[in-house]
Amino acid sequence: MSLDGVKAAYELLKNSGDVSGAVKKAINTVEDNPEFSSVGYGGLPNREGDVELDAAYMDGSTGYYGGILGAKGIANPIDAAIELSKRHMNCLLSGTGAEHFARLQGFRFQNMLTRESKKRWEEELAKEREQLPGAYRGHDTVCVIAAREKHIAAGVSTSGLFMKDPGRIGDSPIVGAGLYADSAVGAASATGVGEDIIRGCLSYEVVRLMEQGRPAQEACKEALAAYLARMSRKGFTPKDVSLIALGADGSFGGATNLKDGDFTFVYADETHPAAVWTIAGGVQKLQGPA
Amino acid sequence: MSLDGVKAAYELLKNSGDVSGAVKKAINTVEDNPEFSSVGYGGLPNREGDVELDAAYMDGSTGYYGGILGAKGIANPIDAAIELSKRHMNCLLSGTGAEHFARLQGFRFQNMLTRESKKRWEEELAKEREQLPGAYRGHDTVCVIAAREKHIAAGVSTSGLFMKDPGRIGDSPIVGAGLYADSAVGAASATGVGEDIIRGCLSYEVVRLMEQGRPAQEACKEALAAYLARMSRKGFTPKDVSLIALGADGSFGGATNLKDGDFTFVYADETHPAAVWTIAGGVQKLQGPA
Repeated sequence: MSLDGVKAAYELLKNSGDVSGAVKKAINTVEDNPEFSSVGYGGLPNREGDVELDAAYMDGSTGYYGGILGAKGIANPIDAAIELSKRHMNCLLSGTGAEHFARLQGFRFQNMLTRESKKRWEEELAKEREQLPGAYRGHDTVCVIAAREKHIAAGVSTSGLFMKDPGRIGDSPIVGAGLYADSAVGAASATGVGEDIIRGCLSYEVVRLMEQGRPAQEACKEALAAYLARMSRKGFTPKDVSLIALGADGSFGGATNLKDGDFTFVYADETHPAAVWTIAGGVQKLQGPA
Repeated sequence: MSLDGVKAAYELLKNSGDVSGAVKKAINTVEDNPEFSSVGYGGLPNREGDVELDAAYMDGSTGYYGGILGAKGIANPIDAAIELSKRHMNCLLSGTGAEHFARLQGFRFQNMLTRESKKRWEEELAKEREQLPGAYRGHDTVCVIAAREKHIAAGVSTSGLFMKDPGRIGDSPIVGAGLYADSAVGAASATGVGEDIIRGCLSYEVVRLMEQGRPAQEACKEALAAYLARMSRKGFTPKDVSLIALGADGSFGGATNLKDGDFTFVYADETHPAAVWTIAGGVQKLQGPA
């Protein structure tokens, strides 16, 4: 999903050194592509047919962050999140408040529902009339971490769960759950079922483990394993949860509880052109591009 | 603020053993009292004159939680949060989505703006026309932790910052920031400037330190000190941040960065009747009722 965006963002970062610009570029590319049914334009709608958007951005050097929660019609949600992260107060805005802010900033609005996603919504409604509701599906968040010298930032954008209840908020705009960045340590971001990710403060926990000296890959594995053990003691089995992280030491990696199949992400640096890396489900092994 | 509520909640807990009922009772008592200008009925409004409510509840035994963010007119926000915590999915609802849920549940609605809080809002608007905006003030969240045998839960309710931007969300409904509960370990909750509390994932961090063996008071002090040091390295000085915690070992305590004056909370158990305890600002020393 993010390969084209990361390629463009990496060029921008190399040339300008602009970390927030790189996060914006990578995420905008995904937001603008109607083929991706879980982010931005073409994102699948909530139960009422409205595309509701969550996005956040955290600057690891200042600790400042911004986020929008459950907002409609903002063409590039990450742009609003980045703009909000320049404020100390009132940096997390929901619903019509977030939309008002985006209008004042002159951000572009559009109907985010494509013909294709409207069709999928209508089909889902028809199915629900026929049968019991199936398991939730169709979540996939764009999470981007960018680093340059001692500056690390993370950004996240999603339209959330398909057929979610109106106003439902996932982990994406929640600092600590969906993303966390600290330039002195590293950054982490999460994707999967937001309700379950929030329960574990997983992005914060990964960064905390990196602060204690774990490389990114170890930190992701350890945070996920401890979380799954804790939830298991409560008799609770989390649905899909996947993590990515980048350390200030240059280490990177991820972890996933996906049993069937792998979790993939895109990575680029000076010696690695942008390519798809894989976390093998179950064994949590990081594998480079084929 | 919570003395009457905790007295009533403690009686209920002693007689029924109902932890969520105790959290509800303590918080409802504050929500219903128009004298408290930062919670429920009588809470101070946002910039537009609307009282927008945040609330959350987390059950430490199941790890389930529920929250409402930026919702209007729900007379008892904590009741909606507790009801949402019974769900696995769609448990965090914002704005009109949260209001829709509360209507379906038959919860009571009312105009939350009292004559007195409307008057304060009008005075503030008049002041702003005369002078530069002052520092933010008038935040105060009701945070309640209840425990019975091996069951711990936490709940939070607030109308947020006075004169906040419409849609602004603070730490209160954010699991990890405003509250965190794990029956095997303990629970913590935070009050102060939400934007700054979110940055530190402070309630999660306190519970994590208790998991490593720290008593509640030590965990609060250590979490706050580490957070202030980390923010200081970023050149950032947090505004008001105060924490309370209760350990599964029965320990309790708090910490605050208030320099001028003390932070107070109410505590009750079998041997201590409900009374006001104090954390002395600066020295972080826990002091029993006079």
